[in-house]
Amino acid sequence: MKAPGRAAPKPRKRAAASSPVRRTRDPEGMQRRILRAATSEFATKGYGGARVERISAAAGTVDRMLYYYFGSKEGLFRAVLEHVYEELGAAEQRLQLTGAEPVAGMRALIAFTWTYYLRHPELIRLLNSENLHRGEHVRHSKRVKSLSFPLLSILADLLKRGEAQGKFRAGIDPAQVYVTIAALAYFYLSNRYTLSRFLGLDLMAAPQRKRWLEHITALVLGHVALP
Amino acid sequence: MKAPGRAAPKPRKRAAASSPVRRTRDPEGMQRRILRAATSEFATKGYGGARVERISAAAGTVDRMLYYYFGSKEGLFRAVLEHVYEELGAAEQRLQLTGAEPVAGMRALIAFTWTYYLRHPELIRLLNSENLHRGEHVRHSKRVKSLSFPLLSILADLLKRGEAQGKFRAGIDPAQVYVTIAALAYFYLSNRYTLSRFLGLDLMAAPQRKRWLEHITALVLGHVALP
Repeated sequence: MKAPGRAAPKPRKRAAASSPVRRTRDPEGMQRRILRAATSEFATKGYGGARVERISAAAGTVDRMLYYYFGSKEGLFRAVLEHVYEELGAAEQRLQLTGAEPVAGMRALIAFTWTYYLRHPELIRLLNSENLHRGEHVRHSKRVKSLSFPLLSILADLLKRGEAQGKFRAGIDPAQVYVTIAALAYFYLSNRYTLSRFLGLDLMAAPQRKRWLEHITALVLGHVALP
Repeated sequence: MKAPGRAAPKPRKRAAASSPVRRTRDPEGMQRRILRAATSEFATKGYGGARVERISAAAGTVDRMLYYYFGSKEGLFRAVLEHVYEELGAAEQRLQLTGAEPVAGMRALIAFTWTYYLRHPELIRLLNSENLHRGEHVRHSKRVKSLSFPLLSILADLLKRGEAQGKFRAGIDPAQVYVTIAALAYFYLSNRYTLSRFLGLDLMAAPQRKRWLEHITALVLGHVALP
């Protein structure tokens, strides 16, 4: 995990004055350790169930250090969300599909979304927790606003080029297709415990996962492609 | 909300002996009030963030009464999940589609799923919380196992009849279509806060909601129907 790369954090004035925080020689390493421990705690317990003392213990520090760098439990949760969003945005940046043939590009884009969620269960868990709290932390994050998420424009470009080449239907809304792909990839993973129980299937078994990716690829291509 | 209809709950022996719980004249009403308050608390705060003392206060009783009827916070959460599952199963039972023309039946089934999630935000929030906890409460619930969820068989029947009438493709897996419909309906609602922020759209505005139902209906029918 990368360092959050945030500007010098605002220390809580009182705490710094009356009971000095022991200065660490590696403030970036410390922030990174706190952020890593917090990601795990928030992803496992949700925002409401997470405990600051467990985070500081896992990071090998004290609560005060955590408040020093992140201000509050809420500030720490926001920093965790910003960090996972930043990683997602960076992964989207690495997708190079501007030269791809549209159908192959769509396949690659769907596979990317699926694989990213599959490999980042913490993203799903944190987003679920954030939506439980009505998106209030993301709403107040200037940093998330400044991040770039190119997947939607990559998708729009593929749809446009596919239409120009007579391969895709005209007038498809990229945002709608974006939500469709996200829904199909995300829900299968996020709700796999209750779904597996209900369907009597292990949705995470490799053949089931493979089948699902094939299914959602066929479903979306069937929707956007001309017959 | 209906009474949970559970058999006489097992009281905690110690509590009953050493510090007698004040008997209520309406035990069913009390259980119903506790369950209603607990549904709201768990749905708002998640399992981890929920507080027993807030639930008992909202139900106009004391923590001890809650432990008397439900054993523990975990037992109460399980009872809440069982209750929302029971309501869902009952709503599915009321769907009468055995005589429906297959395409019309599929439209009705998709609209039912969408509308049910839309009107039951607490179900989405509780299922998210349960999946955060890896489905462990549902897994240990004998009651959920005994409930009937006929939607999957209704869907299988529609697919079979549609195929026989030459309207639907052959060999479609009902479970796959079930997860597809659930994903498209559920995710849009469960993740609407982060999605709305990201897309710069109010996903809950009536025209957006209407468009989404039309879209997912076309998508699923486009997948199952013969061209």
